Amino acid sequence: MCTALNLKTKDHYFGRNLDLDRSYGEEVTVMPRRFSIGFRKMGEINKHFAIIGMATVAEESDDQSYRNQGGLPLFYDGVNEHGLSAAGLNFPGNACYLPPVQGKDNIASFEFIPWILCQCVNVKEAVYFLERINILNISFSKDLPPAPLHWIISDRDRSVVVEQMYDGLHIHENPIGILTNNPPFKYQIENLKKYSYLRNDNAEAVKEDNPAYTSYSQGLGAVGMPGDVSSMSRFVRIAFGKENSVCDDDELSSVGQFFHLLASVEMVKGSCKTDEGRWDTTRYSSCINTDRGLYYYTTYGNRRITCVDMHKTDLDIESISRYPLIGNKSIMFQN
Amino acid sequence: MCTALNLKTKDHYFGRNLDLDRSYGEEVTVMPRRFSIGFRKMGEINKHFAIIGMATVAEESDDQSYRNQGGLPLFYDGVNEHGLSAAGLNFPGNACYLPPVQGKDNIASFEFIPWILCQCVNVKEAVYFLERINILNISFSKDLPPAPLHWIISDRDRSVVVEQMYDGLHIHENPIGILTNNPPFKYQIENLKKYSYLRNDNAEAVKEDNPAYTSYSQGLGAVGMPGDVSSMSRFVRIAFGKENSVCDDDELSSVGQFFHLLASVEMVKGSCKTDEGRWDTTRYSSCINTDRGLYYYTTYGNRRITCVDMHKTDLDIESISRYPLIGNKSIMFQN
Amino acid sequence: MCTALNLKTKDHYFGRNLDLDRSYGEEVTVMPRRFSIGFRKMGEINKHFAIIGMATVAEESDDQSYRNQGGLPLFYDGVNEHGLSAAGLNFPGNACYLPPVQGKDNIASFEFIPWILCQCVNVKEAVYFLERINILNISFSKDLPPAPLHWIISDRDRSVVVEQMYDGLHIHENPIGILTNNPPFKYQIENLKKYSYLRNDNAEAVKEDNPAYTSYSQGLGAVGMPGDVSSMSRFVRIAFGKENSVCDDDELSSVGQFFHLLASVEMVKGSCKTDEGRWDTTRYSSCINTDRGLYYYTTYGNRRITCVDMHKTDLDIESISRYPLIGNKSIMFQN
Amino acid sequence: MCTALNLKTKDHYFGRNLDLDRSYGEEVTVMPRRFSIGFRKMGEINKHFAIIGMATVAEESDDQSYRNQGGLPLFYDGVNEHGLSAAGLNFPGNACYLPPVQGKDNIASFEFIPWILCQCVNVKEAVYFLERINILNISFSKDLPPAPLHWIISDRDRSVVVEQMYDGLHIHENPIGILTNNPPFKYQIENLKKYSYLRNDNAEAVKEDNPAYTSYSQGLGAVGMPGDVSSMSRFVRIAFGKENSVCDDDELSSVGQFFHLLASVEMVKGSCKTDEGRWDTTRYSSCINTDRGLYYYTTYGNRRITCVDMHKTDLDIESISRYPLIGNKSIMFQN
Repeated sequence: MCTALNLKTKDHYFGRNLDLDRSYGEEVTVMPRRFSIGFRKMGEINKHFAIIGMATVAEESDDQSYRNQGGLPLFYDGVNEHGLSAAGLNFPGNACYLPPVQGKDNIASFEFIPWILCQCVNVKEAVYFLERINILNISFSKDLPPAPLHWIISDRDRSVVVEQMYDGLHIHENPIGILTNNPPFKYQIENLKKYSYLRNDNAEAVKEDNPAYTSYSQGLGAVGMPGDVSSMSRFVRIAFGKENSVCDDDELSSVGQFFHLLASVEMVKGSCKTDEGRWDTTRYSSCINTDRGLYYYTTYGNRRITCVDMHKTDLDIESISRYPLIGNKSIMFQN
Repeated sequence: MCTALNLKTKDHYFGRNLDLDRSYGEEVTVMPRRFSIGFRKMGEINKHFAIIGMATVAEESDDQSYRNQGGLPLFYDGVNEHGLSAAGLNFPGNACYLPPVQGKDNIASFEFIPWILCQCVNVKEAVYFLERINILNISFSKDLPPAPLHWIISDRDRSVVVEQMYDGLHIHENPIGILTNNPPFKYQIENLKKYSYLRNDNAEAVKEDNPAYTSYSQGLGAVGMPGDVSSMSRFVRIAFGKENSVCDDDELSSVGQFFHLLASVEMVKGSCKTDEGRWDTTRYSSCINTDRGLYYYTTYGNRRITCVDMHKTDLDIESISRYPLIGNKSIMFQN
Repeated sequence: MCTALNLKTKDHYFGRNLDLDRSYGEEVTVMPRRFSIGFRKMGEINKHFAIIGMATVAEESDDQSYRNQGGLPLFYDGVNEHGLSAAGLNFPGNACYLPPVQGKDNIASFEFIPWILCQCVNVKEAVYFLERINILNISFSKDLPPAPLHWIISDRDRSVVVEQMYDGLHIHENPIGILTNNPPFKYQIENLKKYSYLRNDNAEAVKEDNPAYTSYSQGLGAVGMPGDVSSMSRFVRIAFGKENSVCDDDELSSVGQFFHLLASVEMVKGSCKTDEGRWDTTRYSSCINTDRGLYYYTTYGNRRITCVDMHKTDLDIESISRYPLIGNKSIMFQN
Repeated sequence: MCTALNLKTKDHYFGRNLDLDRSYGEEVTVMPRRFSIGFRKMGEINKHFAIIGMATVAEESDDQSYRNQGGLPLFYDGVNEHGLSAAGLNFPGNACYLPPVQGKDNIASFEFIPWILCQCVNVKEAVYFLERINILNISFSKDLPPAPLHWIISDRDRSVVVEQMYDGLHIHENPIGILTNNPPFKYQIENLKKYSYLRNDNAEAVKEDNPAYTSYSQGLGAVGMPGDVSSMSRFVRIAFGKENSVCDDDELSSVGQFFHLLASVEMVKGSCKTDEGRWDTTRYSSCINTDRGLYYYTTYGNRRITCVDMHKTDLDIESISRYPLIGNKSIMFQN
């Protein structure tokens, strides 16, 4: 399961927790403008916007042509050079992928992020593309069946959620700029209303003359907040954290606050066992400065924030740049 | 408000979140064996166990004699060279400090941690000292009234909570090795029972033939877990996290897991406003390897784990060693 | 706000709580087979199934012709002689009534219950009617604007929910046979899943060797159940009560259990204040034996169950029979 | 498990739910002033205040002398002619009964209610008696081991809770006038504070400009209220209901409101299974007008309120008056 978040201070930030019971060798990857990307049903695009994001890089695919470009990045999330960001989050039981439909833009689920980020500068343009899209039920390779996903797409000022379900493709405005997993987005928004009255202060007691009702702790105004890691509860918790978030608007404070917010919905190892008996855990957390192309991340094993700067790579080449996650050199010794 | 935690893998770890609406210039401090410490009513001790811990170092006090030893550390938490650890946590409205009592060990609240850690090698010895203790209602200085505290004292195998209240001094065994704030510890333990049945897996549905009850998310077995930051809710959440914690037993994994557990009860800036309109925030998180005298910490502004090693200082000198918190050089640039 | 419930023992029972901040003079009313009912856009029906239900009887209407039949019952809920039942429940902000549409059965919201119950013998037939229906935005009279409603329609074996919203008319199968208010039914069903794992027993503790987790009370398996009177919480609570309901199948036990279930979601006077400062309160609770045409009810002021038997009236006449609610003669003196 | 409640309108009312997995043939019983009652260790009292209450009447006891007085009532709850009321509620694992102690009033648990109600006119006098009491670990008969109980004792203006535990006998002032079961009373009071901020209205939304936070239901101010039947949750729920209770002050309204409040914490059959697989159910609910000696009750099978008037019996005789519960003649037929 996962949690995605938008936050705006002076710059705009987008990122997510990736919660899974295993890793797939994901790396921060820059796909430059001349990387030639072949869509299964939509032909090849040879010139496009550059993208930085988290991806598993497929070195061997049915189509071997990616080898000389360094492999094909299968993006989990990312941002393009215009600040348009996207992330795919698990949506099991609700995502519905279909056979190709004539007259539509037929896109495999693993092609969704590059299809949008390579071609659109903002959400408005993305929505224009989304209205023609049909997400295909095809696998990247024999060994990789398509993951059931929904997507969040954001720019500085707007965010939408895309869900292709049995009853069609839905594009929802996302006024709070967050996403988790099941149930579908509109259910999450409806559920959130139940928690409208949670407060970040200790509101005055209703019957303050009664000694049985006296304040014994900070934070009583938010009693009723759900604390488990189910996707509805994480949605409520991150919404509350974001709504009430306070931080300075400089880069360090903003990035730091972003990771604090993500930590409040983190999946700690041991707290969530899957039906297969594995541990659903936050593999990485990311925070992208979408205005400046800076990809910050932490991993479960390395709390130190690490950053890859898109603009320190050559964006006009054909081959991807790969930055394997630094997972364990995290501790600074002060003496 | 605060949260303290013990965790044992191969080594034993003790630490805490310090949640306050301001900082008091706290630093990691090593008090060596020959540091001469004068207790207000108990005379001077010139030779004792060395301590590493977080402290505000008082450079000016009524008694100026600490100047040549580098100042007097007022400990928030710490461990001695035998692995006995202690921390004071906020306990407003319940802590009750008293005038001196003849025949008792009369100790000011700000002397409590050094009194115990300087002289005891384990909880058994600490309890022996505690049975004679009377905690005094005296200020460190005119400007520093005593903070209302209760304490957790732990070694590898045992943990106790000490609460001096209007009805006397209580020493509670602490079988789960955690502490937060109000209400008194025995209330927290009683309240915890209500959550005995929270699970880290998706237990089988009671009526699994009913389509209305199908699993849509991981983590449903823990629905009902409180998610706010009041002290009772943090107690339940950290208890659940600890009980279910899974991690490798090497140093990096253990320390990392410890900080993940503390993050689940962190106070994010903006989420908790005090009655004075200030932000109750997690100032620092600490994790001490009590077997090896390693003090790890992070701050709200610096997620990178920083470590001070007690045994890299000279423990046989008279002056304290001070390590100001590294608060903002946290980010590693990967390109 | 309101709660509706179906329960089957030997016979089938249907009923509801009516929760409002005032009363509208409702009475148990029998509409016999030859009562001539004129629909605003659908003409007159002179022969139809008889209905017993709770209704406000309009004695003065734009169309004065009802006077000689005893007035026009505006039904809140009811059952017909074939055991088909229906109830309207408040649905503010979501109900969407429309102008007449050619080719549709154009029915005012206050005509909905008689339109279905007069003509259909079971849910299957009702659904056939519902597929052609268009619910009109017209008032019963100048003083009575249409209430925003959704409906539950049930027979012994099947239940559906009807919601005409801005995006069209929805007919939902209702596998659990309950209804409250906002949000729309499919959201309620989705929300219910979060509570799949609530149990009516004290399941074994996960860590039963830990003394901190011992059972201190019955009912701990259902900790996490919401207890407030918001419509989502009442939905979860009545669903749990119904799923776990145990009772003998005779008439007295069944009717008694039905009222106990409704009491668990009752709105007690004082517990819920509307924005206008009035008390949202359970005005009446009803339980209809749909197989035998027995309408049982209690009121907020009279806990004693009172019964009106449809088949003790002449069902072949033209005029309604009215039974004003007995609101205050409830107490039996045993000495 | 059980719930007890005090409520004052014009008169004062006291009563309770008795929640058990079986019945013991309880009856409303009047013990008149000249009923000769023999306490096991405290001798006989031949003249005392009259009591009305719910009791199992023991017709056969080790001491056969009660036969000619109609049997010995073992009271669950009751009131004396001066308006002092008392009830015993289940307190398993915490109640601690002791051997006789010289210099104390040694009273068996089954003698507790008559000991107090026979001799005291108000809580002040009761406390005077309580300070000398020692509750004995003796059985009424070979087949009836003592039930583990704590007690609530109330007059119009004051209420106390009595708990004899391993650490002594505690007398707690009870400012809210309610009692349930475990944990001990002071824990319940402490736990209640967590819910200080639950409201009976829809308080203004914190961020009302945000469309994600709009009010969709009445009652959102109390989201977070626990809805299960565990004893801590019932305590919170009845406290909220009482604090916010609104009703007219006449007899019918007051008694009706009392039963509505008790219904909000009722145990519905099927919702709570004991470890032995039996159904913990509300056997009876009672409401005593303590000013006028009127004992109102309902049973699980009979919602109609039935009343026994103490003052319609001869209070100056020697034999008890018994009123078996009317359990099933509850329904009024209106036609």
